[in-house]
Amino acid sequence: MSEATGQTGGERGFVRDIADKKTNFAQWYTDVILKSEMVDYAPVRGCMVIRPYAYGIWERIRDLLDVRFKATGHSNAYFPLFIPESFLRKESEHFEGFDPEVAWVTHGGGEALTERLAVRPTSETVICTMYAKWIQSYRDLPILINQWSNVVRWEKSTRPFLRTMEFLWQEGHTAHRTADEAEAETRLILDVYRDFVQDELAIPVIAGRKSEAEKFAGALRTYAIEALMTDGQALQAGTSHNLGQHFAKVFDIQFLDTDGQLKHVWQTSWGVSTRLIGGLVMVHGDERGLALPPRIAPVQVVVVPIAPKPAREAVLREAALVAGSLGKAARVHVDDREEQTPGFKFNYWELRGVPLRLEIGPRDIASGQVVLVRRDTGAKLTAPRGELATLVPRLLEEIQGAMLARATSFREAHTRDVAGIDQLESFLAGTGGFARAGWCGEHSCEAQIKQRTGATIRVLVPDGAAGHTCLVCGAQARETAYFARAY
Amino acid sequence: MSEATGQTGGERGFVRDIADKKTNFAQWYTDVILKSEMVDYAPVRGCMVIRPYAYGIWERIRDLLDVRFKATGHSNAYFPLFIPESFLRKESEHFEGFDPEVAWVTHGGGEALTERLAVRPTSETVICTMYAKWIQSYRDLPILINQWSNVVRWEKSTRPFLRTMEFLWQEGHTAHRTADEAEAETRLILDVYRDFVQDELAIPVIAGRKSEAEKFAGALRTYAIEALMTDGQALQAGTSHNLGQHFAKVFDIQFLDTDGQLKHVWQTSWGVSTRLIGGLVMVHGDERGLALPPRIAPVQVVVVPIAPKPAREAVLREAALVAGSLGKAARVHVDDREEQTPGFKFNYWELRGVPLRLEIGPRDIASGQVVLVRRDTGAKLTAPRGELATLVPRLLEEIQGAMLARATSFREAHTRDVAGIDQLESFLAGTGGFARAGWCGEHSCEAQIKQRTGATIRVLVPDGAAGHTCLVCGAQARETAYFARAY
Repeated sequence: MSEATGQTGGERGFVRDIADKKTNFAQWYTDVILKSEMVDYAPVRGCMVIRPYAYGIWERIRDLLDVRFKATGHSNAYFPLFIPESFLRKESEHFEGFDPEVAWVTHGGGEALTERLAVRPTSETVICTMYAKWIQSYRDLPILINQWSNVVRWEKSTRPFLRTMEFLWQEGHTAHRTADEAEAETRLILDVYRDFVQDELAIPVIAGRKSEAEKFAGALRTYAIEALMTDGQALQAGTSHNLGQHFAKVFDIQFLDTDGQLKHVWQTSWGVSTRLIGGLVMVHGDERGLALPPRIAPVQVVVVPIAPKPAREAVLREAALVAGSLGKAARVHVDDREEQTPGFKFNYWELRGVPLRLEIGPRDIASGQVVLVRRDTGAKLTAPRGELATLVPRLLEEIQGAMLARATSFREAHTRDVAGIDQLESFLAGTGGFARAGWCGEHSCEAQIKQRTGATIRVLVPDGAAGHTCLVCGAQARETAYFARAY
Repeated sequence: MSEATGQTGGERGFVRDIADKKTNFAQWYTDVILKSEMVDYAPVRGCMVIRPYAYGIWERIRDLLDVRFKATGHSNAYFPLFIPESFLRKESEHFEGFDPEVAWVTHGGGEALTERLAVRPTSETVICTMYAKWIQSYRDLPILINQWSNVVRWEKSTRPFLRTMEFLWQEGHTAHRTADEAEAETRLILDVYRDFVQDELAIPVIAGRKSEAEKFAGALRTYAIEALMTDGQALQAGTSHNLGQHFAKVFDIQFLDTDGQLKHVWQTSWGVSTRLIGGLVMVHGDERGLALPPRIAPVQVVVVPIAPKPAREAVLREAALVAGSLGKAARVHVDDREEQTPGFKFNYWELRGVPLRLEIGPRDIASGQVVLVRRDTGAKLTAPRGELATLVPRLLEEIQGAMLARATSFREAHTRDVAGIDQLESFLAGTGGFARAGWCGEHSCEAQIKQRTGATIRVLVPDGAAGHTCLVCGAQARETAYFARAY
């Protein structure tokens, strides 16, 4: 078994075992992620094992995002897994928000602890403790630190990638001299997230602000990017919080400013997680399984030799040559397993969402050609061997663009202006998607929608509220909201 | 503050604050790692915060090692942080070895758990559970998986990097068809570790086998690489375990072999950790602070502009040009802080161990030259601007080689053949280092040495035992052992 490609020799993972996407989306999702060997259930309830194929996707997410963080001046660091209970309690909104989800360590080294330790659900409190120590002067600002780590949140109902007790993420934590700088940082990261998810994952998102009810526990303002899954439900794909001075005040993070005054810093925090992998599955997957955008695919091109017995040696040699000739132009894997038929291999790699398949048989060798099959459209084309090194990268970029365009069309077709709560309800009962409407800003209206339809405000966007009315109470709209049911 | 370089504006971190290395090595170590802003103490006893400067070193360790793992066929995955107590108890030697060090989660989601969860001290038990599920046929073998993660071991006495309650590491876990394959894998990884530590960290190591008393809890055989610190104590820098079928039998990991028989797999596990950073400090550091081998240094070259007021603009422009001209030939940082003197900056970057310093002042601009200062030797040279792009990479390689040579000489000067326990004792009471001697293989002799001298068998090496006698009992030596006091 080559774990790099998740390739096994067994007869598992056939497409015929995947539930119908249209009629049973939830089962389809589970089937795809299990049968493609992305993930498995761990022995602890609500935990997942991220298998090499999905971990390869996570490594690419990490590397591509990390470059963007570093290009915007951030560095990585590592803060402890354990947070003493008293630290978590310091910011009361924050504690109330996270307390129900905390896993507590009570014993260590054979003894009961005098103070319980939280397994970090997020790291604001421990990081603020350190920042209070590190920051004395305006010269120490800004601090722009990110951490790649695991976090634990005790969830009652879990699904791999989307909501698990433990997940992998990055959490950025910055401290600034002024309120304006903190707000600029919060929005900069929102832009970084939006561009990254659109450019690399081919997932279009709506970026905006969260309502008071939906914001991060302890934040002044939360911004988010929201994506639409192909079942019509929204997925929060990344959040960026302006923490104001809430944490600075309780953790006493002060600095001597240029004017000689002692002031509290302004802070932000922001994160994306392995949840993005679930988003990839639900946005791009189809009845044949996963479909990966080329930029994020661990394997971009799979070469399948079609090798009848007498020609086997020659075909395998040719397949290796083709893979070699693509060199650094693409991430290529040759599936040279003897015991499997070409048909099995086609299914196998389609299930795993490899963007491009190259088929090589004796006749192709004779004619100096190869057959190329696109995963996104199923389109087949034939190309001369000599053109592959230029054709393949171009095709991969074309597939990347086509996948984003397709996802964007889907989202546009599933975004509707609704004039009242009845319209919203029937929209959600139908195809579902994003419902756009005016909102007065009152929590009671937001709560009424959630109670009646199950939809929440995903984000508020700045434009277009003028002249509109709240879809619940009919008062003057203060903001334009995107409503959806969400993961 | 630029966290990429750990650069702060304050007056902290002066060399005069570092304890004397010769007379107070332990305090010197603590001073260097704290004042260079590599690490800080976390609010939880025994935990550390890895600050950006040291995390940059860890990122390079991870990336350089990861390339070697992948080149030898391994893939990364991620297994859960929590291990149910019953799983940890399955392999009894393993449980007894780790139980005293386990942190236990007893409450989650506001409720008491029915079964305690161990925060992983190592992941054999949870990974074996999954392998039992994934492996059915010889076609599924080998499985070659590695994980980069955090682990927790409740230690009574801790020191940053060397022994902390939580640390970062990689743990490889492989399963094989035959005993020979598992042994070959164990030794392959030992070679990977040895080459990596020597080539990239410039730390010479002795590779060998551990005695029964010192092997990993649950292993058949443990191999290790051992390095010598400049205080004469050894540091175990990496371990590779042949697990035999111990875990396969208790976790029931069986496969149908080519001969139609159901057999247990043969396994290995292996790891290195953030401890390597402590090794870098203790092998290469000196009275001026840290000294980093160029290949692992986050900043390889620091440019210090020497800019009197009227020439400031011109010198800064020139410094930026020089940094730019080095392009991708080196990782360069320009220290353009206005408020600090050149002298402060020299100390600052020497403390942080940057391998090469470039000084540029008005006179250098006029003469088209720069001054270069090596961190390892303090040697100063002058070079024409135009030659920097070729000279700097060559100098960095030269420094890398010189640092390894110096560390190797030190180790050779501190390695001695000892004929009896008295000689061993006086060697250890003097400079300390590695004492080489014959050993009969009996635990009683090993235990007697440990009790009387505090030294342990660091590794056993295959050659040279013939004709020698055990340094304790005088019986025929079965092996040659390296003894040392160790971290």
